[in-house]
Amino acid sequence: MHKMATLPEALRLIQEAFRPLDGDERIATSAACGRILAEEVRAPEDLPGFPRATMDGYAVRAVDTFGACEGSPARLALVGEIRVGCPPPGPLGEGEAMAIPTGGFLPEGADAVVMIEDSEAAEPDTVLVFSPVAPGENVIGPRDDIAKGTRLFPRGHRLRPQDVGTLMGLGITAVRVVRRPRAAVVATGEEIVPPDIRPGPGQVRDINSYTMECLLEGAGAMPELHGIVPDSTEGLREALKRALGEADLVVISGGSSVGTRDVTLAVLESLGEVLFQGLRMKPGKPTILARVDGKPVVGCPGHPVSAFVVGAKVIVPLVERLLGVVNPLRRPWIQVTLAGSVPSAKGRREFVRVRLVGEEGQFRAVPIIAESAVISSLALAHGLIEVPEEVEGLEAGTQVWVELW
Amino acid sequence: MHKMATLPEALRLIQEAFRPLDGDERIATSAACGRILAEEVRAPEDLPGFPRATMDGYAVRAVDTFGACEGSPARLALVGEIRVGCPPPGPLGEGEAMAIPTGGFLPEGADAVVMIEDSEAAEPDTVLVFSPVAPGENVIGPRDDIAKGTRLFPRGHRLRPQDVGTLMGLGITAVRVVRRPRAAVVATGEEIVPPDIRPGPGQVRDINSYTMECLLEGAGAMPELHGIVPDSTEGLREALKRALGEADLVVISGGSSVGTRDVTLAVLESLGEVLFQGLRMKPGKPTILARVDGKPVVGCPGHPVSAFVVGAKVIVPLVERLLGVVNPLRRPWIQVTLAGSVPSAKGRREFVRVRLVGEEGQFRAVPIIAESAVISSLALAHGLIEVPEEVEGLEAGTQVWVELW
Repeated sequence: MHKMATLPEALRLIQEAFRPLDGDERIATSAACGRILAEEVRAPEDLPGFPRATMDGYAVRAVDTFGACEGSPARLALVGEIRVGCPPPGPLGEGEAMAIPTGGFLPEGADAVVMIEDSEAAEPDTVLVFSPVAPGENVIGPRDDIAKGTRLFPRGHRLRPQDVGTLMGLGITAVRVVRRPRAAVVATGEEIVPPDIRPGPGQVRDINSYTMECLLEGAGAMPELHGIVPDSTEGLREALKRALGEADLVVISGGSSVGTRDVTLAVLESLGEVLFQGLRMKPGKPTILARVDGKPVVGCPGHPVSAFVVGAKVIVPLVERLLGVVNPLRRPWIQVTLAGSVPSAKGRREFVRVRLVGEEGQFRAVPIIAESAVISSLALAHGLIEVPEEVEGLEAGTQVWVELW
Repeated sequence: MHKMATLPEALRLIQEAFRPLDGDERIATSAACGRILAEEVRAPEDLPGFPRATMDGYAVRAVDTFGACEGSPARLALVGEIRVGCPPPGPLGEGEAMAIPTGGFLPEGADAVVMIEDSEAAEPDTVLVFSPVAPGENVIGPRDDIAKGTRLFPRGHRLRPQDVGTLMGLGITAVRVVRRPRAAVVATGEEIVPPDIRPGPGQVRDINSYTMECLLEGAGAMPELHGIVPDSTEGLREALKRALGEADLVVISGGSSVGTRDVTLAVLESLGEVLFQGLRMKPGKPTILARVDGKPVVGCPGHPVSAFVVGAKVIVPLVERLLGVVNPLRRPWIQVTLAGSVPSAKGRREFVRVRLVGEEGQFRAVPIIAESAVISSLALAHGLIEVPEEVEGLEAGTQVWVELW
């Protein structure tokens, strides 16, 4: 008999037993959103590469505007106009101004931009400035934003839309990213048939392989379904060996009967090391984690609700461990009032399906009290609430956090 | 001069001015995670299709167990064993029991399952039951879960991993989904060059097209970059006409100077109807929304921070409107203590970049007070906080919600 684990213990075991994968690939930055950097990225150059105006107005020497006010404007000589995208026509001397658009290249000699609103073009070639500017005002200089050599992102950073833009802005059009873990999903259960088959008496279609495929994909893995294998020790061992030959991670999407669980346990014990057998969590109790050839193999419960919760709470973090992610995905969640009471046994963490009812901003969460075998509860539920191990149920009216899925 | 809009007004205008797109496609359910259903889905059959055990144990007639207790167990005749995936060997008579695994097909005559833990196999062919079961206990019947004809998902539902599993479990291996809106991104700005070009004096590389591409893709659109067009009325008009010929939605990723903005406004006025010009929001003020040939065209500010915020707050909801989504994407967010004060002008909604510091569970949010032109602030920020229109800044120590990006 192996050790049962609480969810935090299971997550700690995952951290201890598995390391981020070796191997990375160089891909176009524009295709890298959501991927994980395999190397730290530093700025290869200054950005901007020249002092730029951040407002439309006049490039000036700040000192020439000191003391300027509505009643006594500074009078500057308008000596030129800067066009965006072009070098300035020449340097700026004392008492001079040049018209400059947002994004324009500040001329040598200038150190600030007076906003259009604070100035007025007067008789030909003169600008009146009604308000002083400080040096650097409305200007962004070459080392004010991203200086060459600045560390932008650490290794393990999951790239976001704005990060892709920033990298492109620095001319980094390709990046090294961690390769996506290959995840094999092996379905077991004598009663399971593929979804395109009409089930015979006592048979049901495969659900869990597909839920798991989507969860794995969403976490950053490349799932591959290995079909349905018979519930024999020999059949599962062969399927598992084949899966481990190709994949970095194997999910056994289990049948739920004791027979199937016994076969899975026996095969995992014979091929590798069982890290835990059983999670102190509901649903999800009959979960097994093993290490075979250094690779994680998760034996999942067969009930669709249990498989989903284990996928979300254990397998997604496992994929992130293999990716070496430093900014893990987070789920959206909202705080709402519980609309019904939730019984829960002490000493076991419980994830309860809830349905949100009412108006946006005033949602209440209706707990769906149904066995893990009830598939419709997955379609009905908007998310999960967590009842910690030390808590014995929740009363209606309690404020709860719903993790939205 | 057109009307300025607050953000809620802008979102209302989007709802009023645009309708969900026509056109859908039939795709494999296994490839439909994240897609939007174009039709309501009802269950084509009962699930499960037969009464199933939800526990390992013995199939019985509940009435035969009434009054059973530890001291006086019910004695039942063990008349057979049900194998998972197979029809039961025959009907169950009075005083009889059959061994049944989780998922097994309950025989005719049986109406409950006694758990293994509450029973004992005694001398050959006898089962002792130590605890009574109620009719239906540990059994899930054909209409207990998903009855044929039940509405599972409404039109407009964004499919989640568990939904894909549920559909497959019902044999629904293909679904009609809303086609993804084609979104053209047209970059403007005389100073903008493609990222693979070394910028000359006064030039900068395109950032916003790529941030926008990722945001559009994440919202469910099919973005296509149309390159950089010159800041002339003629050039932009031609580019816009070409983009509208192919796309359902056009984003003009703008240069930030007054010149560029004037050109964009003139072209949108000449081709269609401007719905608002200017957002009472910082960053994002110089945003324009127009309707041309019935299609939305958004003119975005040029500063990368502004473009990102407008993408997140205006363009993502616009894509969801075109998709007809009923369960919009939500961002994860967390409540933390603000580590520095945030100035904000009254009468204008402000989105402030923040960086999270400290330990998970005790994060503090450090506001990044930087102009919208500062690109590094996007890489540094973990998310945005919102300062409502009626609020004049936030004090350090305030509890704030950070929307994580």
